[in-house]
Amino acid sequence: MDLARRVRTGDRRALARLLTLIEDEDGEGLVELARLYPDTGRAHLVGITGAPGTGKSTLVNKLALALLAGKETTPVGVIAVDPTSPFTGGAILGDRIRMRDASMDDRVFIRSMATRGALGGLARRTADAVQAVDAAGFRHILVETVGAGQAEVEIARLAHTTIVVEAPGMGDDVQAIKAGILEIADILVVNKADLPGADETVRALRAALDLGGPSRRERAARSDGELWTVPILRTVATRGDGVADLVQAVESHRRHLEQGGGWRSRERERARSELADRLREELTARFLGGLGDGAWEAAVEKVAERQVSPRTAVRQLLGEAVE
Amino acid sequence: MDLARRVRTGDRRALARLLTLIEDEDGEGLVELARLYPDTGRAHLVGITGAPGTGKSTLVNKLALALLAGKETTPVGVIAVDPTSPFTGGAILGDRIRMRDASMDDRVFIRSMATRGALGGLARRTADAVQAVDAAGFRHILVETVGAGQAEVEIARLAHTTIVVEAPGMGDDVQAIKAGILEIADILVVNKADLPGADETVRALRAALDLGGPSRRERAARSDGELWTVPILRTVATRGDGVADLVQAVESHRRHLEQGGGWRSRERERARSELADRLREELTARFLGGLGDGAWEAAVEKVAERQVSPRTAVRQLLGEAVE
Repeated sequence: MDLARRVRTGDRRALARLLTLIEDEDGEGLVELARLYPDTGRAHLVGITGAPGTGKSTLVNKLALALLAGKETTPVGVIAVDPTSPFTGGAILGDRIRMRDASMDDRVFIRSMATRGALGGLARRTADAVQAVDAAGFRHILVETVGAGQAEVEIARLAHTTIVVEAPGMGDDVQAIKAGILEIADILVVNKADLPGADETVRALRAALDLGGPSRRERAARSDGELWTVPILRTVATRGDGVADLVQAVESHRRHLEQGGGWRSRERERARSELADRLREELTARFLGGLGDGAWEAAVEKVAERQVSPRTAVRQLLGEAVE
Repeated sequence: MDLARRVRTGDRRALARLLTLIEDEDGEGLVELARLYPDTGRAHLVGITGAPGTGKSTLVNKLALALLAGKETTPVGVIAVDPTSPFTGGAILGDRIRMRDASMDDRVFIRSMATRGALGGLARRTADAVQAVDAAGFRHILVETVGAGQAEVEIARLAHTTIVVEAPGMGDDVQAIKAGILEIADILVVNKADLPGADETVRALRAALDLGGPSRRERAARSDGELWTVPILRTVATRGDGVADLVQAVESHRRHLEQGGGWRSRERERARSELADRLREELTARFLGGLGDGAWEAAVEKVAERQVSPRTAVRQLLGEAVE
């Protein structure tokens, strides 16, 4: 059964199967995925991130439907990453409930990813899932994450375009700046813009953008040769207000990247980070596989008992392997 | 200048210096830290996490002061981790503004950590910082993080006791559960409990705790031999309401861990994860150092151009090094 070939033709069931294999880190599935690699690199990857309560999922839903409008032949993929349930490894139904509009349109393909608690593992599996959906011919892939932190940095590495969603009343200005992860934003959205406080939120975001330091805009000017001005948009996702403007901003950012060399430099950054991730993991697996029985557990025990420092224990493990 | 010895005597300036060296990943600083390792393991590490806007920083402030009450000889350390500013690498003043009560009491030592964008690097530097503060004789160390996600999983690995802070009106029930990172909580706090909706939030948390699946409580029963019932406390941190109960819950969780074997099993888990982290990094650094000039960049380029898959590129790099 040539799963890769079926995925390449856009077979949804084959894609779903491949994504399950990816989530399970199944060896054969990963071989199939590697076969698909030459078919990837065509999708526009859009990351959407923001704190809980900003209405992000609803916005993703509406954005997916708006990207479809009038383009029957280019379905939209949505990958919802849930890094908030590390120990159960199960995504909760929240996204799917919220996504019912989009999921009832069969031109939208939705998949939730759950973390399994492995450091960095979620980023790699998400990158793999994006590649699978990309190879299946989707021209827009929306990757939604919950929360603020490491996961968002990784999305910024993964995505061509990163949308950061805020909402009025999510805390005072200091919090907004702190939680804003503004440096990774290509587009800022104030959702729930019909609520009191929307003007203040827009003002706080603008002030934060204008603050000194190496903002995304300046970085863009340095690395991509051209300046991108981060727009601050207002939406009311539940009513669809402002979603058309958001689609325009997404398309405009894509053109900006393509014209200014940013597309290529982001592809290279993505390749670098994925390669480093995989290399790190493979080296560790090979090393641990070559250690003597019980050597790893003995080192853990010595560190836990404060007999040696972690630094010394690593040296000892490395020395052991060299002998 | 024997920095380690000065830190060991509780010299605050020496501690601050060592923490700066740790943040800079300075080689000599890390040697000093390794010397201090036998002096660590005595502090009670308390992680405090929750979404932006929950009033977490104010609560940490009040908790630090309450832990001090009547115990002149045991200062409290606070490490505020800010994973939301990955690209500037600079912690914003927010925490310090909010922490002014505690920072005016010289028995509280406060330090902000900023991320430098390195995957996993923040967790390691935070673990190092905690060790330094531990060796300096602090008996309580509060580690505060922003956001929800990977960083919180790592805090759960680092801390003996993890407090998850929620607030009323941070989104509906589905969001609350989704963002709740409930599985890592040893103590749940509904802060801003004087706001409307506090009862609903408590109810939603209790319902989520009662849901099936391997919750923290069940895990505790399996690995530590004894059941810990996660309490749900109400606080109004700005007024100090409920903070005394929180101190009691923290102390009670400590006793639970010490009596049931949980303290020891958490130390072992921490050692394991720190050792794995360091090993991974050291292996990668050694491998990259041994590669031929330009081999790494050439591999990145081939992957970015879709000439080879990341999987194949890693194999080729490993093969090259073996020859």
